Amino acid sequence: MSEKSDLLVIGHTAIDYIMTVEEFPNPNSSTPINTLKVFHGGAGANVAMVAATLGLNTAIISAVGKKFINSDYKRMMKEVNINTESMIISETEDTPTAFGMTNNNKDQIFYFYWGAGKEFAQAKPPKSTISSCKAVHLATGDPIFNQKSSAIAKDMSKIVSFDPGQDLNMYNREKLKEVIKNCTILFGNHHEIERIEKLLNCDVNGLRNFGPEIIVKTCGKDGSTVYTKKEKIKVDSIYRPAVDPTGAGDSYRAGFLYNYINGKDLKNCAKFASSVSSFIVEKQGCQTNIPKYEEVINRMNEFYGK
Amino acid sequence: MSEKSDLLVIGHTAIDYIMTVEEFPNPNSSTPINTLKVFHGGAGANVAMVAATLGLNTAIISAVGKKFINSDYKRMMKEVNINTESMIISETEDTPTAFGMTNNNKDQIFYFYWGAGKEFAQAKPPKSTISSCKAVHLATGDPIFNQKSSAIAKDMSKIVSFDPGQDLNMYNREKLKEVIKNCTILFGNHHEIERIEKLLNCDVNGLRNFGPEIIVKTCGKDGSTVYTKKEKIKVDSIYRPAVDPTGAGDSYRAGFLYNYINGKDLKNCAKFASSVSSFIVEKQGCQTNIPKYEEVINRMNEFYGK
Repeated sequence: MSEKSDLLVIGHTAIDYIMTVEEFPNPNSSTPINTLKVFHGGAGANVAMVAATLGLNTAIISAVGKKFINSDYKRMMKEVNINTESMIISETEDTPTAFGMTNNNKDQIFYFYWGAGKEFAQAKPPKSTISSCKAVHLATGDPIFNQKSSAIAKDMSKIVSFDPGQDLNMYNREKLKEVIKNCTILFGNHHEIERIEKLLNCDVNGLRNFGPEIIVKTCGKDGSTVYTKKEKIKVDSIYRPAVDPTGAGDSYRAGFLYNYINGKDLKNCAKFASSVSSFIVEKQGCQTNIPKYEEVINRMNEFYGK
Repeated sequence: MSEKSDLLVIGHTAIDYIMTVEEFPNPNSSTPINTLKVFHGGAGANVAMVAATLGLNTAIISAVGKKFINSDYKRMMKEVNINTESMIISETEDTPTAFGMTNNNKDQIFYFYWGAGKEFAQAKPPKSTISSCKAVHLATGDPIFNQKSSAIAKDMSKIVSFDPGQDLNMYNREKLKEVIKNCTILFGNHHEIERIEKLLNCDVNGLRNFGPEIIVKTCGKDGSTVYTKKEKIKVDSIYRPAVDPTGAGDSYRAGFLYNYINGKDLKNCAKFASSVSSFIVEKQGCQTNIPKYEEVINRMNEFYGK
């Protein structure tokens, strides 16, 4: 089959309710909400929206509720031509939703509703959708579905990237090994890469023995490092006053994959990715300040030089 | 002006997110949500939806967000012919929303987002809407807007009913006196009536000196009592296994007003109201099990005899 998509993203599409309160209520009491904002989120959708806005021909597989079909969220995906045909639509459960509350002391509490996301586990990865793309990115979602998808994609010699993110605690050593053996690129922030090293009992270079050719470790404002057999490439972050760091990691992955799929060298991938994420942190929400390709290139050249 | 509506309800239209969790998270941690249901709520809308379903020609004034205009909620109001023309639509804030979490221990926590509800305070009650109805019911909403509306309605010799409900703590003695002096009927549950008695330093019969001809005290499964100058009418509740008592009080008020506006005697009003609320408690949510007129009459006759 011809490759209709550049990138297939597998992982959550979610709704984020972000609230501020004076203080968290004690049991059997109530508190007024000072501010409430509703954002489009979910690591899978964050990556897909950024990749598609940059210009990749992108498809997504998430498990969502029926209301998603006529939602603003789907409309925004359509606006950047994301292929949503392989979405898993739950008959009974709503789209995954996160409720996050921050108090005056800047403490945070999160409530997560998996909802439709639970239906990933029983679903069968669609081979035709996987076969019609150049690369598959596995974001936070369901370990079993991710494992199955990675095996199919590997069999078809696709580029496979994997970012277990917050789901890392859902993987034991064996499950993790089963996914990363199919990977081309393993993404993680420094906490996550450290945890994976412990789980697999090796250092960052040792991780390549388990499958991935490329390890990308992101360290927030301290930049990112790309590890391959031949080299270790350290790239500074592009500092921008961070209004909200949420989604920065996902957008970095989308940017990195954009340049990787377009055949750029790894250093260039990391610089481009850092430029992308520098836009995301400037506004609250993961998908509120997605840059266009030209904006990313301009800021990248300005910061790193041509 | 001719009376186009039987009943104008003034008060909140809100969205209720009702969740169950194993336990409430500590600061800087997260918890999965076991169940999440989203219900249509808000005391004003609860009364209006029940009254309209029973057959009253009903209008509502609430302050809501722009998304309400194309929402399922508005569509459901339209289905029972509720006039929403005088709704206050906020340009910047969303529809009031409540987030309620219950843990395994049955403890509850509530977060309230006032949102568009704050815009009641600056809004001017629409005289033409008030003049075009037979009765005005003031539900939880904004004390100032309720006071202004009650004064206009009283001037126009409308039936005015008032249910301060959970908002009671927003009224001081003077504010409360200013509203209830314009009332025909004062509704409250036994906690609320007791609190009003304390605030005005009188007993339940003394409340009539402040304005209302009729005091209706509801006591959940222990029934309700109607106090007038001439009589004290005690009516048993119709017991139904309560899945969720939320909204029972609002539906009682709607039922009472339905019969009152239709000229029935007070005992009949209370029986009809009890029958209405017995349906509401049978399902989770305030608007999920609204009975039709015939169902209410049948259960009422069955329980109290004809």
